[in-house]
Amino acid sequence: MRFVQIVVLAGGTGGARFLRGVRAAAPEAEITAVVNTGDDVTMHGLRICPDLDTVMYTLGGGIDEERGWGRAGESWTVKEELAAYDADPTWFGLGDRDIATHLVRTRMLDAGYPLSSVTAALCTRWEPGVTVLPMSDQRVETHVVVPDAETGRPRAIHFQEWWVRHRAELEPSAFVQVGVDAARPAPGVVEAFAAADAILLAPSNPVVSIGTILGVPGLREGLLASRARIAGVSPIVGGAVVRGMADRCLPAMGIEVSAEGVGRHYGARSDGGLLDAWLVAEDDAADVPGVDVRPRPLLMSSPEATEALARAALDACAR
Amino acid sequence: MRFVQIVVLAGGTGGARFLRGVRAAAPEAEITAVVNTGDDVTMHGLRICPDLDTVMYTLGGGIDEERGWGRAGESWTVKEELAAYDADPTWFGLGDRDIATHLVRTRMLDAGYPLSSVTAALCTRWEPGVTVLPMSDQRVETHVVVPDAETGRPRAIHFQEWWVRHRAELEPSAFVQVGVDAARPAPGVVEAFAAADAILLAPSNPVVSIGTILGVPGLREGLLASRARIAGVSPIVGGAVVRGMADRCLPAMGIEVSAEGVGRHYGARSDGGLLDAWLVAEDDAADVPGVDVRPRPLLMSSPEATEALARAALDACAR
Repeated sequence: MRFVQIVVLAGGTGGARFLRGVRAAAPEAEITAVVNTGDDVTMHGLRICPDLDTVMYTLGGGIDEERGWGRAGESWTVKEELAAYDADPTWFGLGDRDIATHLVRTRMLDAGYPLSSVTAALCTRWEPGVTVLPMSDQRVETHVVVPDAETGRPRAIHFQEWWVRHRAELEPSAFVQVGVDAARPAPGVVEAFAAADAILLAPSNPVVSIGTILGVPGLREGLLASRARIAGVSPIVGGAVVRGMADRCLPAMGIEVSAEGVGRHYGARSDGGLLDAWLVAEDDAADVPGVDVRPRPLLMSSPEATEALARAALDACAR
Repeated sequence: MRFVQIVVLAGGTGGARFLRGVRAAAPEAEITAVVNTGDDVTMHGLRICPDLDTVMYTLGGGIDEERGWGRAGESWTVKEELAAYDADPTWFGLGDRDIATHLVRTRMLDAGYPLSSVTAALCTRWEPGVTVLPMSDQRVETHVVVPDAETGRPRAIHFQEWWVRHRAELEPSAFVQVGVDAARPAPGVVEAFAAADAILLAPSNPVVSIGTILGVPGLREGLLASRARIAGVSPIVGGAVVRGMADRCLPAMGIEVSAEGVGRHYGARSDGGLLDAWLVAEDDAADVPGVDVRPRPLLMSSPEATEALARAALDACAR
């Protein structure tokens, strides 16, 4: 089956690599990436959208492939100078090349352009070959409830502070989407679902990437109203997280860290959930009632492996 | 005579170097620099104060000595990346190290701090050894009236566009201080004049540096009310500008490009003008009625020469 309109829900590094596979697997399709913006943050007056940038840089050939985020050939002069001014925060990796992106974005946002327009403008440089949409033009920020270091009482910190500064070591008891009640899907998102003939959930973090996207009011409804089949790819391989810290997020939501646990969390579409199909690693057993569970090689260890994975996910959307 | 409280009116490079000489000549004095902010500009969302930064970097040991502006060991990654985004303007020299200063400043201004407080905060890093004050906390921007390239009709462009982009080649017919009517001297400026026992006009541009400072409502009155003598240093040596483009600015104001012309423009304090004393180069003849004209070596060709010049200027303030 040849797909004409494909939508992919994606977070950062894993989602971006998966998108590169989808682009390779379906070079003639119109691909729309709906990207998590819950990790977005303002630092030093700059509006930073880590997942949008990772998708844009990865698909545009500007990513640092080894790190999986930020620009290739990056330098850190501004960051060092900010530290010399004792300007907080000093723990965030703000590269010089990256800063230009944030300057352009911040200036456009300050001028009144919505994030979706800003993203489109930035993409005129990067030509990612897919339409990159933020999940929402409204500001939604993931905060993590953790025990205070001194009192032990729960307090909420920005996701980036938990993730980057504390390396997810503080035990999370909840993830809160600040601003989500006032959010709505960005222009083009629901329209892309309606036009889609395949919808894929990238192997991104089910809580703070895919979960955050699905939390935008109206987005999940738009997704489920699509005539397209929905196939998800497990981020858990061999009972462990391939990359990132989903194993730190899932337990806080009462989700088992396994392909089956995440599959059941997403749930069968026939039963009010999301999934028509669920791709799990060949070594993982997963029983997800009402879902077409397909064991496939999930590791995106090379462009060829990633393309094959994307093809398998698209195959799972065929009727 | 030993001076206890010295005030220096200064622009960028020349003013900063002169200040370094004053600091060396009067190491025990409290020195206050009142610095031109008419060149300030917002680019890429960053608030840039070229003269304040030049003074701060020069006195704090961070200046690029050869260029006379910006940071030593500067790199230009962000600038190149902004150009890759086609982000206007591309003609301004925005260095990576410098950008950290602008980020800190912009963030503090956005948070509501006045420029004088921001400048003091930045100076906690640079420890310039003098109190660096902006002439005003209000935004005053110098615009230059030039003929339009196509129609020939007069239009106003920002000073930086005239100076940096067009290298002052467009013939100026006037200099306009946008916002000056609503400005007042920054906190500490008038107080410094009142406490001063010596006031010096650095050899900065008489129109767009010293002239802009003097244009702030109330500042000139505060200056003239001081019990201190006022000595100026000619920026014209041997009938030519030592540095910068005063020769492009003076004719537009009807001022002769000579030590005498500038001296007469400032005028004798006894006659409603500014000067008690006027230092001119030893080769320059200058007749400025009512002013103590002193031929001295004016070239700041070495730290020693600059210190000697500052000492000569201070001597001219002795009663």
